[in-house]
Amino acid sequence: MFSEIIKNVKNNTPLVHNITNYVTVNDCANILLACGGSPIMADDIEEVEEITSICSALVINIGTLNSRTVESMLKAGKKANELNIPVILDPVGAGASKLRTDTTFRLLDEIKFAVIRGNMSEIKTVGKADTSGTRGVDANVSDSITEENIHEAVKYISSLSEKLSAVVIVTGAIDVVSDGAKTYAIRNGHPMMSKISGTGCMLTSVIGAYCGANKDDIIDAAAAAVCAVGLCGELAYEKMRKNDDGTSLLRSHLIDFMSKIDDEMLKEGAKVEVRQ
Amino acid sequence: MFSEIIKNVKNNTPLVHNITNYVTVNDCANILLACGGSPIMADDIEEVEEITSICSALVINIGTLNSRTVESMLKAGKKANELNIPVILDPVGAGASKLRTDTTFRLLDEIKFAVIRGNMSEIKTVGKADTSGTRGVDANVSDSITEENIHEAVKYISSLSEKLSAVVIVTGAIDVVSDGAKTYAIRNGHPMMSKISGTGCMLTSVIGAYCGANKDDIIDAAAAAVCAVGLCGELAYEKMRKNDDGTSLLRSHLIDFMSKIDDEMLKEGAKVEVRQ
Amino acid sequence: MFSEIIKNVKNNTPLVHNITNYVTVNDCANILLACGGSPIMADDIEEVEEITSICSALVINIGTLNSRTVESMLKAGKKANELNIPVILDPVGAGASKLRTDTTFRLLDEIKFAVIRGNMSEIKTVGKADTSGTRGVDANVSDSITEENIHEAVKYISSLSEKLSAVVIVTGAIDVVSDGAKTYAIRNGHPMMSKISGTGCMLTSVIGAYCGANKDDIIDAAAAAVCAVGLCGELAYEKMRKNDDGTSLLRSHLIDFMSKIDDEMLKEGAKVEVRQ
Repeated sequence: MFSEIIKNVKNNTPLVHNITNYVTVNDCANILLACGGSPIMADDIEEVEEITSICSALVINIGTLNSRTVESMLKAGKKANELNIPVILDPVGAGASKLRTDTTFRLLDEIKFAVIRGNMSEIKTVGKADTSGTRGVDANVSDSITEENIHEAVKYISSLSEKLSAVVIVTGAIDVVSDGAKTYAIRNGHPMMSKISGTGCMLTSVIGAYCGANKDDIIDAAAAAVCAVGLCGELAYEKMRKNDDGTSLLRSHLIDFMSKIDDEMLKEGAKVEVRQ
Repeated sequence: MFSEIIKNVKNNTPLVHNITNYVTVNDCANILLACGGSPIMADDIEEVEEITSICSALVINIGTLNSRTVESMLKAGKKANELNIPVILDPVGAGASKLRTDTTFRLLDEIKFAVIRGNMSEIKTVGKADTSGTRGVDANVSDSITEENIHEAVKYISSLSEKLSAVVIVTGAIDVVSDGAKTYAIRNGHPMMSKISGTGCMLTSVIGAYCGANKDDIIDAAAAAVCAVGLCGELAYEKMRKNDDGTSLLRSHLIDFMSKIDDEMLKEGAKVEVRQ
Repeated sequence: MFSEIIKNVKNNTPLVHNITNYVTVNDCANILLACGGSPIMADDIEEVEEITSICSALVINIGTLNSRTVESMLKAGKKANELNIPVILDPVGAGASKLRTDTTFRLLDEIKFAVIRGNMSEIKTVGKADTSGTRGVDANVSDSITEENIHEAVKYISSLSEKLSAVVIVTGAIDVVSDGAKTYAIRNGHPMMSKISGTGCMLTSVIGAYCGANKDDIIDAAAAAVCAVGLCGELAYEKMRKNDDGTSLLRSHLIDFMSKIDDEMLKEGAKVEVRQ
């Protein structure tokens, strides 16, 4: 299904500029290399434009934002927009503090994102932003997507995608990826992945690599990344159980499988449903 | 012995706000998840009060302090005090530079800590602080606690606990945990743990989770955390030897065991002595 | 060959001050402990001089430089020069942005480095710096050193070493280590190491430890570090293949082998050629 997507990543080694948090930054760097991309981290305002300019994608993750790095995010994002480089947003903790919510709104206002990925709570905060003449709204959807409420979730995410002209991704027990026109429900992954710090951040960086190498098919690139990371999580969980390891090696196995994943494995393991 | 403590951690998933160093922050996040808690890292002065307010505990670790983050530590710590949220201090490198020593003194002066954990050299620096009308003192105790000098060490730590109205923990070959009234000597752990960066920081974060879920029994929560991390270190060392691994996988195994530890394992493995 | 070098590291536990990036800093800390050294990370301008003063070596790595930390690098570097403590430079990304190039030039201008390590592209940027009355030059050598062009590479690196009065190291498929008078070509390592974030940074920190414990033989200390890390990479690759692991555990195995390496292993495994 995503065979072309994967091929483009392996062939192009997309360089991804990450302005991200200092908690999971090493995992992001390593999973980018593992998936066939290449990472560069730079957050000084004097250099972010230049660094973005040589990259295939820009990932903005507000996990440990501060007043200095927020300005760098804005500058890099605008430059990326200018150069038509896809920008991916991970609004970590949006809703948990005024600073995170306001920063998310400001980023959404000043930068055009290709993809926005978060959990449902973060995405609902994204949905409250006033953008280009449209009022933000309070969403009345559950924070966790289940088989029971997936219809409502898809409806909400799809309409938000349309409003923001961005692929919106909500990850959880079921992942939903939508660009408004097309929506995927993805059932890869394992609950134990929530016991590793940084699975969300790593996914966002991998989305950066996949989109960077597939600029003309952002929705499928993003969906392929969600499947790939989820599948690696499943395989990692199996290996963890077999070896009687715990959550630290679960993370290692996840990145390890990402360094091995190919077209064939993804074709066999992807659990993707086209919703609309 | 610590059965209730462990149960409360597992049942409450305490959210722990860490203002910590960028060297071992990822290990702290992962061991918090592994032990049954949940991590949040935030250090911008605009948001630390809000983040602390939604947490069960606040951990302040000065490992890579700078002028910006010190102000955030103070603001978060005062807020935590206001809200009766336990604050844990890890005075990394106190005594090694004027900045670290002065910052430690300032934190002790402006914040009421529930627990302070360091090696003997750091804790002796803590002991020199003038606090609430009491003069700091130079301590004449050895930097490493052995069976020969444990009596003196316990005496010093216990009186410092009383003076600071905080649980004071000195970790080393033997760990001592005291609140002045009650003192534990704990003989878990393995010397090889000193070959991993961040065992101290990880312990401090786990203490945060354990205390956050057991606010009415800080001394036992802290002691249980010391036992648990030490025991995981022992088990990790055995696994490392069996697999012919080295120090990097020793760290992975340590976090792995933390993700498996339960009441039963701790009951069997804890080497705790009540000294007074 | 490097038996004395290794012995001195194990016997002296050199403390290494790292002002480095937040991406690979944890790996640097852990490999320093693994190799027999001890890490300290500190970047606030108020304390860097004091911290450098208690160390055996200072490592400056510009991987995620910012305006605040650049000033700290300069201050620490000058103090180290004053105290005759070897300073090691890793000009990560020099050439990729004006900030990185200018900072590299400024560091070279104000600090005397004992060792400078980078890939060929970074070192060619280093070579463009105007230093002490000598004009920088554009080098016409290939970015990757092969058996075909090694003669040219050695000539360039050796003359640059002389010009800068520093050991210059270019790592790649073949590594070249030169102080102008003596030049080593080292063929340890494995291509898969480029799929781990931080192998270069880790090597630079290990060079810090080796030089810190061998101040009178910087060229051999640096060469021994290059051999040791390369050899650990080879052994790690074999273990990865045997266990069917991927790139995350490749990193773990690399650090694991560093925690085991000794005189005997290095004697057997080093692939060193004296070029001149």
